Amino acid sequence: MKIITLLTDFGSFYPAQMKGVILSRLGDKATEITFVDIAHDIPPQDVRAGAFALLSTARYFPAGTIHIAVVDPDVGMDRMGLVVESGGQIFVGPDNGLLLPAARSLGGHGGSPQAPQAYKIAVSQEILGTGQGQASNTFHGRDIFAPVAALLASGKSPASMGPRVRPKDLNFGAARKTDSGFEATVIYVDRFGNLILNMRDVPAFSVSLKGIKLKAVRTYAQARRIEPLITLGSHGFAEIAVNQGNAAEAFRLKAGDRIELEEI
Amino acid sequence: MKIITLLTDFGSFYPAQMKGVILSRLGDKATEITFVDIAHDIPPQDVRAGAFALLSTARYFPAGTIHIAVVDPDVGMDRMGLVVESGGQIFVGPDNGLLLPAARSLGGHGGSPQAPQAYKIAVSQEILGTGQGQASNTFHGRDIFAPVAALLASGKSPASMGPRVRPKDLNFGAARKTDSGFEATVIYVDRFGNLILNMRDVPAFSVSLKGIKLKAVRTYAQARRIEPLITLGSHGFAEIAVNQGNAAEAFRLKAGDRIELEEI
Amino acid sequence: MKIITLLTDFGSFYPAQMKGVILSRLGDKATEITFVDIAHDIPPQDVRAGAFALLSTARYFPAGTIHIAVVDPDVGMDRMGLVVESGGQIFVGPDNGLLLPAARSLGGHGGSPQAPQAYKIAVSQEILGTGQGQASNTFHGRDIFAPVAALLASGKSPASMGPRVRPKDLNFGAARKTDSGFEATVIYVDRFGNLILNMRDVPAFSVSLKGIKLKAVRTYAQARRIEPLITLGSHGFAEIAVNQGNAAEAFRLKAGDRIELEEI
Repeated sequence: MKIITLLTDFGSFYPAQMKGVILSRLGDKATEITFVDIAHDIPPQDVRAGAFALLSTARYFPAGTIHIAVVDPDVGMDRMGLVVESGGQIFVGPDNGLLLPAARSLGGHGGSPQAPQAYKIAVSQEILGTGQGQASNTFHGRDIFAPVAALLASGKSPASMGPRVRPKDLNFGAARKTDSGFEATVIYVDRFGNLILNMRDVPAFSVSLKGIKLKAVRTYAQARRIEPLITLGSHGFAEIAVNQGNAAEAFRLKAGDRIELEEI
Repeated sequence: MKIITLLTDFGSFYPAQMKGVILSRLGDKATEITFVDIAHDIPPQDVRAGAFALLSTARYFPAGTIHIAVVDPDVGMDRMGLVVESGGQIFVGPDNGLLLPAARSLGGHGGSPQAPQAYKIAVSQEILGTGQGQASNTFHGRDIFAPVAALLASGKSPASMGPRVRPKDLNFGAARKTDSGFEATVIYVDRFGNLILNMRDVPAFSVSLKGIKLKAVRTYAQARRIEPLITLGSHGFAEIAVNQGNAAEAFRLKAGDRIELEEI
Repeated sequence: MKIITLLTDFGSFYPAQMKGVILSRLGDKATEITFVDIAHDIPPQDVRAGAFALLSTARYFPAGTIHIAVVDPDVGMDRMGLVVESGGQIFVGPDNGLLLPAARSLGGHGGSPQAPQAYKIAVSQEILGTGQGQASNTFHGRDIFAPVAALLASGKSPASMGPRVRPKDLNFGAARKTDSGFEATVIYVDRFGNLILNMRDVPAFSVSLKGIKLKAVRTYAQARRIEPLITLGSHGFAEIAVNQGNAAEAFRLKAGDRIELEEI
């Protein structure tokens, strides 16, 4: 069996085209594929939000999994397509940093033997398929990344897809200690309106946001109903929530916003 | 083959983490799994709406199906996790009533031999997995319920998950006859804006809502375009709709609202 | 293996009921099924938008694929259910034009030997199943089309489902040349706010919309950030976009709107 996950900002029907391409290319081997949709509602062209969702999710999949991720504001420009191998899993997508935090989380860092290995996709007739002259200028997910995933699922190696390259990286920055507390950035807003921050720990002292105290808790249940709180989320980042409420609405914040957490 | 369904209020990417955990735990047996997503857009923390969606859907699945359902405002409190067996199907989720209407719909009631059997999940190292000390305080769906579903899919019995318990129940109430008509509650608002009520029959006499007559019909096609109507939905509950329109918008109603149906 | 796709305007949990019915009916053969969701967020009862999504997607699937599509404002009226065979793929759904553009795109046109073959579904006890007297008046997707798809997946022929009929057709119209430019219709608005038009080519001369020039480009990357553009989309229709912005919001347009493209 081969597990293929998909993460995009495409909404509906375009992801199904990618699955159709993969199933068509694999022919009889298509029976061995299990698709898992990670998300198709990443905010349009928000590479950082996509990278966060992929980073949070990839570690739960077994070795051998192939992840196709496409959040790609620069499709049609001369940015490369990548195949990245790390920790026994394979990532396919644009070279804009989307794949790197997830890939790094599975392997070593820097020059370690387990560091992610990245290969530039050399677009070939084998990828484009018969009867099609060239890839669409607007939909590499379907015309390049899906066929590449099918080739990988049928046993081709990542290294056979093209030359080794040094991929573009992305990091979420890090919350910064200031005189009065912390400066942090909202990476992601989930469906509950929880604000996920680029902080790996909850501050050791009490903090407020926009003048409102955030109760530091281990679990939401330690807060009263509608009480603002800060906790270490299941993804390993600090998150600000309103217990059984919506923090994004309450604090009028969205992905990408900078915030100040004041020590109190 | 084992069918595993998922119903949550998580939106995107958290359900994929649950699937990743299940596939990882099953190893070679993962080929036998077919996932079906029931819904991940249940209104946040609306246990009753989730229970309605599960109740409406479970009966269409074959014996042997495992349903994981997580709508869990009290995650992190000391509420139990449950495995419930009924009518040959198995339900896994929090002990807050979410699973019970669906489980009851498949088996007998009260003390009958087919009544649902409920077991409290005794969290063990086998569930938590190696290398992980404890479950996340905020995401039991991934850290407890998904591993339990994997164990059940690999052949473990519900009874092996923990001691028999009497689960927390949930019912949708029942519309009440009043002097002037009926008092009912909106259980669920579907994508068309149809208002699903806690009524198992359409009133035998003509009724109005907020002064507007509802045409009692067997099928939407019996109403004119944009005509308000009441009918028995495919789920077995009465629903108020506006033919080719949106009743929730027209009547400004939402899940949880009480309504008066006046006899006219 | 049999691939079954689903396209509806149902939102959540109703599509899972359809999958449950199919898996239940197939019994041991259910292991051979791979479900692919095309879309469940088609604008309610917008048959044309559904037909566009199906047309754009079906061609990427292999021969043997069964597509169930349900966007059905007239459910419960005496419109027929259809099975349509074209280019080795099979379509199941209402006879309201939804299936025809996709079916035609796979086969020949008019009287050619490869023209789509359409059969009216003769509702039988084999379709309705044991213990159920009749189909729901409001949910043919679950009670008729899903069982028919299960029968087809288990090897029954389209022709065995009922008599040959001439199906209701649907076309997207065609943009019309006017004295000052083109008159076109918005068929679909995608998640990025891109406006997909009933035009198969980008005009050869410069055009404006509501007084704003649209840059004709081969790829989004040829436009500046937030620049309005017109291009030939990956689906083969012209689309108007705002590079890294939202054209539907910027021009205040939605599916079904007529627009004038002025030559400049």
